[in-house]
Amino acid sequence: MKIEIPLAQANRLINSGNVVLVSSAWQDRRSIITIAWHCPVSFKPPVLAIAVGKTRFSAELIERSGEFVVNIPDWNLVDAMLYCGTRSGRDEDKFAGAKLTPEKAVKLLRAPKIRECIGALECSVIDRVEIGDHYLFFGEVIYAEVEEGLWDNGTWKPETAQLIYHLGGNRFMKPGPVSEVK
Amino acid sequence: MKIEIPLAQANRLINSGNVVLVSSAWQDRRSIITIAWHCPVSFKPPVLAIAVGKTRFSAELIERSGEFVVNIPDWNLVDAMLYCGTRSGRDEDKFAGAKLTPEKAVKLLRAPKIRECIGALECSVIDRVEIGDHYLFFGEVIYAEVEEGLWDNGTWKPETAQLIYHLGGNRFMKPGPVSEVK
Repeated sequence: MKIEIPLAQANRLINSGNVVLVSSAWQDRRSIITIAWHCPVSFKPPVLAIAVGKTRFSAELIERSGEFVVNIPDWNLVDAMLYCGTRSGRDEDKFAGAKLTPEKAVKLLRAPKIRECIGALECSVIDRVEIGDHYLFFGEVIYAEVEEGLWDNGTWKPETAQLIYHLGGNRFMKPGPVSEVK
Repeated sequence: MKIEIPLAQANRLINSGNVVLVSSAWQDRRSIITIAWHCPVSFKPPVLAIAVGKTRFSAELIERSGEFVVNIPDWNLVDAMLYCGTRSGRDEDKFAGAKLTPEKAVKLLRAPKIRECIGALECSVIDRVEIGDHYLFFGEVIYAEVEEGLWDNGTWKPETAQLIYHLGGNRFMKPGPVSEVK
């Protein structure tokens, strides 16, 4: 079961650089793109950034709709993650191809979230910049949820979640040991 | 010994979300700030983004000099990483306080790099945006280097390097197992 988490802490779901699946939709088209280039950029309001290649279909959908969902996959979804990172949504519906289930977002009107993911950050676009060969979309996080067992009183537990980290090329990493450091 | 690495692959050093130490200088002042919020944003040219709190001393130094170095610490530097993340460079020279050694950068004029780090990306500022409570500085990577044993023919080995990942609050993570996924 997924539980709502406080917006002020929502960006912890991506804080350590794990790969995410970004879903978006416009009119009768929808898509999912695998993104390793993203980061939190503001506490108040909670904002994150995602870098999307300028020619990608998802860039069009996000630009037109002004919305996207950052979905958090774990290693159970590694095949779907690769699928969404290597195909174009111009040619097909990636939800069908990657066997992922679209689900109505809680606050967004258009972008669906992905049921099989362990968490989701619903984002409303507040700005966009063009840098080199990518667009950077800035999304204010307006709703956040995560699987109940992975969020312990404000403590996010990626080591339990088995997040996916991209090292470049076809090399991927699992979370390692966690310590409290003071 | 550190070796130069190709600029096209330089961003791999931060691709998986590891904490970095950003050094900068202007006139007779210099500083280091611990940054967990950063990401690659472009392949061609190679550009990365760092998010710096608007009130931070490093934001002033980077704004004025147009330069910064992204230094990659490993767990040997965990105390220095915490030191640089919890003090202000307005009050002291953090190189002295954190026992880190400034070294002349290869391509930059002002920002020093940190000798004890395992890698460095020398960046020239090409743009800046203000989002919520942070500035996002975009740096084109103009020189990159890494410890010889950690870079195997274009393959970056953070699992050997023992990078530091921030999970939020005082929780930090080490790298986990790596697999090739196709």
